[in-house]
Amino acid sequence: MTPSHIEHIGIAVTNLEEAIRYWEDVMGLKCYAIEEVVDQKVKTAFFRCGDVKIELLEPTCPESTIAAFIEKNGGKGGMHHIAFAMEDTDQALNEAKDKGIRLIDNQSRPGAEGLQIGFLHPKSTLGVLTEFCCKK
Amino acid sequence: MTPSHIEHIGIAVTNLEEAIRYWEDVMGLKCYAIEEVVDQKVKTAFFRCGDVKIELLEPTCPESTIAAFIEKNGGKGGMHHIAFAMEDTDQALNEAKDKGIRLIDNQSRPGAEGLQIGFLHPKSTLGVLTEFCCKK
Repeated sequence: MTPSHIEHIGIAVTNLEEAIRYWEDVMGLKCYAIEEVVDQKVKTAFFRCGDVKIELLEPTCPESTIAAFIEKNGGKGGMHHIAFAMEDTDQALNEAKDKGIRLIDNQSRPGAEGLQIGFLHPKSTLGVLTEFCCKK
Repeated sequence: MTPSHIEHIGIAVTNLEEAIRYWEDVMGLKCYAIEEVVDQKVKTAFFRCGDVKIELLEPTCPESTIAAFIEKNGGKGGMHHIAFAMEDTDQALNEAKDKGIRLIDNQSRPGAEGLQIGFLHPKSTLGVLTEFCCKK
């Protein structure tokens, strides 16, 4: 299965308010949504740039995977993942698994913005944390 | 100045041939160009996904900044930078500088695919190595 486009780029941030100011004031993009994803222990902010979204992710507790990423990254934020828009997340995950790719999610689960999402493990994707997502 | 779209996502890789195989076989994207950028000490491979390009970067020598990135990243590849398409790279760099952003490039310089490029320093961009680029 081939992605139709890059749905979003996930960026870890230590302080969502400061990051929104940066992306609005310096990069000239407009934050159109702020959403807490309780399941993933993150607060997110979204921006559009062409047909790609920028998703900022601030951890809401130390147990968040985003908190672990920031800690490993010397206490700083940074590029966290790329999400590819697929027709069917579960089918795309299964196809990747059949090609020997290690999955974080064997089945899709609900993500931000009502998408069904699933992650591939970066050890199988040459270091790029990769998300598949679809609208259904 | 506001970016029209994300021109490309730069991904550091340790082995370009292996990485091309991964992006073609697993992600279903087609490599349409391979180019060595002598100035930046990298060999690049390009893929299209919607209106964004994926740029794989393999260092051609240990002095390459991509080699330094890979070494710092535990010998692994990973997401390296985001490049935003601007109407005028020099003007965009100047505007960022006026807003207190530290620049890597005070002036644009030639990059891959004939683009004029310039980088902002990740210490000023919340950890995201940011490139501005334009066609002229």
